[in-house]
Amino acid sequence: MSSSFSEQLHNLGLNKMRPSGRQPDQMREIRITRNFTRHAEGSVLVEFGDTKVICTATVDRGVPRFLRGSGSGWVTAEYGMLPRATNSRSDREAARGKQTGRTIEIQRLIGRSLRAALDLKKLGENTITIDCDVIQADGGTRTASITGACVALMDAINVLKQDKNGAMKGNPVKQMIAAVSVGIYKGEAVLDLDYPEDSDAETDMNVIMTESGGFIEVQGTAEGAPYTQDELNAMLTLARKGIDELVVLQKQALAE
Amino acid sequence: MSSSFSEQLHNLGLNKMRPSGRQPDQMREIRITRNFTRHAEGSVLVEFGDTKVICTATVDRGVPRFLRGSGSGWVTAEYGMLPRATNSRSDREAARGKQTGRTIEIQRLIGRSLRAALDLKKLGENTITIDCDVIQADGGTRTASITGACVALMDAINVLKQDKNGAMKGNPVKQMIAAVSVGIYKGEAVLDLDYPEDSDAETDMNVIMTESGGFIEVQGTAEGAPYTQDELNAMLTLARKGIDELVVLQKQALAE
Amino acid sequence: MSSSFSEQLHNLGLNKMRPSGRQPDQMREIRITRNFTRHAEGSVLVEFGDTKVICTATVDRGVPRFLRGSGSGWVTAEYGMLPRATNSRSDREAARGKQTGRTIEIQRLIGRSLRAALDLKKLGENTITIDCDVIQADGGTRTASITGACVALMDAINVLKQDKNGAMKGNPVKQMIAAVSVGIYKGEAVLDLDYPEDSDAETDMNVIMTESGGFIEVQGTAEGAPYTQDELNAMLTLARKGIDELVVLQKQALAE
Amino acid sequence: MSSSFSEQLHNLGLNKMRPSGRQPDQMREIRITRNFTRHAEGSVLVEFGDTKVICTATVDRGVPRFLRGSGSGWVTAEYGMLPRATNSRSDREAARGKQTGRTIEIQRLIGRSLRAALDLKKLGENTITIDCDVIQADGGTRTASITGACVALMDAINVLKQDKNGAMKGNPVKQMIAAVSVGIYKGEAVLDLDYPEDSDAETDMNVIMTESGGFIEVQGTAEGAPYTQDELNAMLTLARKGIDELVVLQKQALAE
Amino acid sequence: MSSSFSEQLHNLGLNKMRPSGRQPDQMREIRITRNFTRHAEGSVLVEFGDTKVICTATVDRGVPRFLRGSGSGWVTAEYGMLPRATNSRSDREAARGKQTGRTIEIQRLIGRSLRAALDLKKLGENTITIDCDVIQADGGTRTASITGACVALMDAINVLKQDKNGAMKGNPVKQMIAAVSVGIYKGEAVLDLDYPEDSDAETDMNVIMTESGGFIEVQGTAEGAPYTQDELNAMLTLARKGIDELVVLQKQALAE
Amino acid sequence: MSSSFSEQLHNLGLNKMRPSGRQPDQMREIRITRNFTRHAEGSVLVEFGDTKVICTATVDRGVPRFLRGSGSGWVTAEYGMLPRATNSRSDREAARGKQTGRTIEIQRLIGRSLRAALDLKKLGENTITIDCDVIQADGGTRTASITGACVALMDAINVLKQDKNGAMKGNPVKQMIAAVSVGIYKGEAVLDLDYPEDSDAETDMNVIMTESGGFIEVQGTAEGAPYTQDELNAMLTLARKGIDELVVLQKQALAE
Repeated sequence: MSSSFSEQLHNLGLNKMRPSGRQPDQMREIRITRNFTRHAEGSVLVEFGDTKVICTATVDRGVPRFLRGSGSGWVTAEYGMLPRATNSRSDREAARGKQTGRTIEIQRLIGRSLRAALDLKKLGENTITIDCDVIQADGGTRTASITGACVALMDAINVLKQDKNGAMKGNPVKQMIAAVSVGIYKGEAVLDLDYPEDSDAETDMNVIMTESGGFIEVQGTAEGAPYTQDELNAMLTLARKGIDELVVLQKQALAE
Repeated sequence: MSSSFSEQLHNLGLNKMRPSGRQPDQMREIRITRNFTRHAEGSVLVEFGDTKVICTATVDRGVPRFLRGSGSGWVTAEYGMLPRATNSRSDREAARGKQTGRTIEIQRLIGRSLRAALDLKKLGENTITIDCDVIQADGGTRTASITGACVALMDAINVLKQDKNGAMKGNPVKQMIAAVSVGIYKGEAVLDLDYPEDSDAETDMNVIMTESGGFIEVQGTAEGAPYTQDELNAMLTLARKGIDELVVLQKQALAE
Repeated sequence: MSSSFSEQLHNLGLNKMRPSGRQPDQMREIRITRNFTRHAEGSVLVEFGDTKVICTATVDRGVPRFLRGSGSGWVTAEYGMLPRATNSRSDREAARGKQTGRTIEIQRLIGRSLRAALDLKKLGENTITIDCDVIQADGGTRTASITGACVALMDAINVLKQDKNGAMKGNPVKQMIAAVSVGIYKGEAVLDLDYPEDSDAETDMNVIMTESGGFIEVQGTAEGAPYTQDELNAMLTLARKGIDELVVLQKQALAE
Repeated sequence: MSSSFSEQLHNLGLNKMRPSGRQPDQMREIRITRNFTRHAEGSVLVEFGDTKVICTATVDRGVPRFLRGSGSGWVTAEYGMLPRATNSRSDREAARGKQTGRTIEIQRLIGRSLRAALDLKKLGENTITIDCDVIQADGGTRTASITGACVALMDAINVLKQDKNGAMKGNPVKQMIAAVSVGIYKGEAVLDLDYPEDSDAETDMNVIMTESGGFIEVQGTAEGAPYTQDELNAMLTLARKGIDELVVLQKQALAE
Repeated sequence: MSSSFSEQLHNLGLNKMRPSGRQPDQMREIRITRNFTRHAEGSVLVEFGDTKVICTATVDRGVPRFLRGSGSGWVTAEYGMLPRATNSRSDREAARGKQTGRTIEIQRLIGRSLRAALDLKKLGENTITIDCDVIQADGGTRTASITGACVALMDAINVLKQDKNGAMKGNPVKQMIAAVSVGIYKGEAVLDLDYPEDSDAETDMNVIMTESGGFIEVQGTAEGAPYTQDELNAMLTLARKGIDELVVLQKQALAE
Repeated sequence: MSSSFSEQLHNLGLNKMRPSGRQPDQMREIRITRNFTRHAEGSVLVEFGDTKVICTATVDRGVPRFLRGSGSGWVTAEYGMLPRATNSRSDREAARGKQTGRTIEIQRLIGRSLRAALDLKKLGENTITIDCDVIQADGGTRTASITGACVALMDAINVLKQDKNGAMKGNPVKQMIAAVSVGIYKGEAVLDLDYPEDSDAETDMNVIMTESGGFIEVQGTAEGAPYTQDELNAMLTLARKGIDELVVLQKQALAE
């Protein structure tokens, strides 16, 4: 089904399968707003439909202890969600005194993925800290975070490039990365799940890829029944389509 | 000096005292945006110049243990700041596992102030939780938080009013409250300090008042030299002017 | 009403308003005992009626990281209450693993106030740590703490003065400070609230002043109805009277 | 290369690629010892070569709050490593007061995977807690844990079956699951990575599958360069081979 | 050597062995002050020379979960030290967020010992919480705590006896207990070690006994060389003498 | 009663007093397995009957801050129990975020005891960390831990001896130590209590001794009635017998 035809169907309200009426291979409306707040070296508001995340990138001289003297830089990430980003209020992690397992899992994924975008040797002994704070959640916060954070990271790298004393050794950017969720929903592979789909999907998979189509991370979990190799392949095909669209939008944002 | 004349001077760029060029009795531009995020019963983005805070109000049935069976409701508040809301990144409290003393002090002030806006008996056994999350800081985050949170609180009350089973006993709103900072800066009383003033002020005072001019809380701290009764009075006069302006803006926002 | 006449009334048992039978402007019996324990550089037992606080001052060479190399000293404070200092036992904070918000608020206030008593530049790179531990509570523990701690601080400064290697640069003491609570109780302004008044007051205000009458900190909270400018002024007048009496007692204690 | 030929090569010591001399598709020696300790309802020592994990399953009546009254059971997992299970001693998490992000990530994976082995409805309102404690680590502790824990889980289910009051509603076991790691090491897909391979692999993937070949979870991370679809497929093929072998061994152990 | 002769020597200043000039079998001056603070059911200041501890006993209806419905009561203890009770300031445990191992060890010992003084069945389902807070330390804080806490416990029991609804089943007091330290110091067994002895002793032993001479707890640690059976016996003989003296003083205090 | 006769009785099943049928002076079967895991400098599985503990010793260069530059080494210990080492599962301390008081007490005892086995001066500025992890518990875990840890410690010392740069100053081993529990059970002194005895004993005593019969630590607690001097002596006599047997087994293990 050609994308333009599916859009026509969508406009006619004929697609019944997805709660949003989207076609299986149709992403939500994506917006990437740079310079969203003014203090950070990179600051991006990323929106995947109703999912909204503020991604900032902070540059600090120096690296964690395990890298000192190695000449190599570091990228690390932290993730949070405003307590009322969700439909019912969740506890404030700072007040509980503890990040949830989900938070820790997500921020490790974000950091790991972004490190794959850079040649850390060329970054020099600088640390870039990514903060992804979800102000409104509607599914896919981790993939939105990675997609937006990659843009904030590029802005931070540009700040470092301008810095004579920044000690970078050439351009550390290997490639753009982006992330999208795919899943099996009501027996069909769908792209970019929103919350109603996410909470009801049989399988939920997060795919992080480079702009040239290499896999950085694939995480697919059967929530209900196990999934087959064919389903896996169908999801990866959708993911690749979504990543391609996201990289175009990231580049447009960076060109502005 | 009449306010309109000071505004003329300001427009001419003649005021040299304040870093922003504002007159001593001139507030920053204030914006109050309701329904900023979609899940909470009340959700407000409040802006005092470059200080931007998301204030949400969440309604829950039931009250903390110490009020059960009392027939009385409760309002509580939590406060946070995105790590890069400020010029240099501060630690994420959720990751440190601990809120700072400053955070705790502020959220206690917000909760205490908002409870003064309501007749908790009329609220019935409902709890309203206020979350104030600073996404960009430029001084005065606690007063902006209280001012915005009061609007979010009104929206939440309205949701409760609509709820047949909400068990409210009449309108619990006693009055609007608002908050503003005043201080002694370079020897002169000034209204609504921004960050450059705040970090350099001799005295910093936060004033929370009702729309009818009663004091809810006055907190004035000499950062450098002690302040006199005259200086205290000058600051309170400015505060009253600021509060009046804020209440007008709160009501305008609520009327939209 | 002259103070001596109110004292006569008090002696006749005619004042009915306050639970203790005190006149509105009458403080509790105040006692300041120096050298209460033997290890600390300054150790004071301060009693405001039945409120009893051990205040110690500890001198350490060196300053926190943010002051290193600045030539400036530091004063910090910690506050605690024995679990059974109060009528019903409260949890031991060390066992809970967390100080309460109230504790944190109070110890920040104590530290801030005492720093105002000194010229930190003249203190040199020394840190004075104040510990205020309430062994019996009957209202006003924070104001008693500050008043007693100021005396312990003076003793610690004297120890430093004797120390040839202490690196002080002249006398860092700018002035004595003292603290007292005032409030609106049954519609009337009263001085030095005890626990029965405190838990029932419409407004509760803590005032920290210098011996020469400058304000260090004013914190006034409406517990019930908002308070007016006139009530604020009446409370501040009482506070000034109380502070004057406290400073006399502090100086007597230091002269012994 | 046929598997039997690669085994011949291996026996001849001719394979040079893997540090252990194993063929690319050759697992380490696997041992599954039931009833390893005596108190737990299920207790298994699982060994993947030098990786040794004690997996116990504990049955408790009742379920977490979010499931009460649902008629559904629950399976949860916790993971730990003795401090000196590894080459250099790691901090004891109990002493640090905090589980690492890695630990949390792993125990969430174990719990999620095992829940997929059961029909939780049929389990009734019982909770099975899996503890996986690594006493010696040489790579692949999470896949060994899941493989061993599934056996301990079956033993615990058998205990429940014997229990007249256990409130199970039929046999909750849907299928055996097992887990194995695969990766790209020196450009080639390999099965069941040991520590020297794991720390040096370009890509590391954990695959959890059912005995009938359905995917429960796929987690593949590019540590160095991104991986291609072909590499992904090669890894999944190896994983399926490993899972088949593991399920045979699990069933043999259970038949003893 | 008769005790009166050793006292004569002591008065003549002839004993050279102990830093304090005390005879080997001579305790420090002991004082037990009841009703030291006014809120607790039992409140005792106990002084072993310069070691001063406030011991309070709090009565609560009900027992911890593991005793509910058993008809049996409970006694538990918490221990703390003011930060500057010692020669150099120690961290405030409430601020560190954690009790030290030493504190935990001591409070477990206190609770265990006091439970031995009572018939918990007769106590009924009441809990008595003992708080021992050291305000000045000079060695032997745990033995002073137990000795003082036993007196506070008796006062609390008396409060319960008066309470018609207290649900005690007869007198729960089996016997007085007291505690004293003994040690091997410079090769000789000594009674009631003060801090200079304690920090230099070869062996340090805490002995808790009943008034009739039964052992409740013996804890003897070789700090330097191992100790012999003869040394153990010599220490226990001294301990018995000290306990006898302490029980007399406890009873005198209770008789006042 | 001669040991061989009591063994005959035991074989005849005639001893009725102890649940295990052991004679009062009979230890459980003891096994000490060296090199139990492969990474640690010393790794021992110690078994006292059904109590099984993995003891590892880790050597690190350097010492804690308070010893730096002293030329002296350090030995410290940590203790843990797998959650299902016991009959009912206990919380995982790492997940609770806190070690229990019991754990802390035990690990302090282990560390203190092992330090007594060495001349820390001769150890040089090295730290040996002992980890005792109970994989199956049946009473006496702390005494088994000390006994096994002493063997692991000897192995670690031997590794250090081999190390040219280890900076030891001669042989730091002063003597073997071992530990055993004794108690009063059903009115009789018994050696090496197992769990059924331990939970029912009137008195429980842990004794740590050197191979030459010196006391390192004696900890005896009356669980029910106080114990007498005679009972204390009877227990110490049994302990000495047990220690003698344990030291023989330790030496056998080390000779293998």
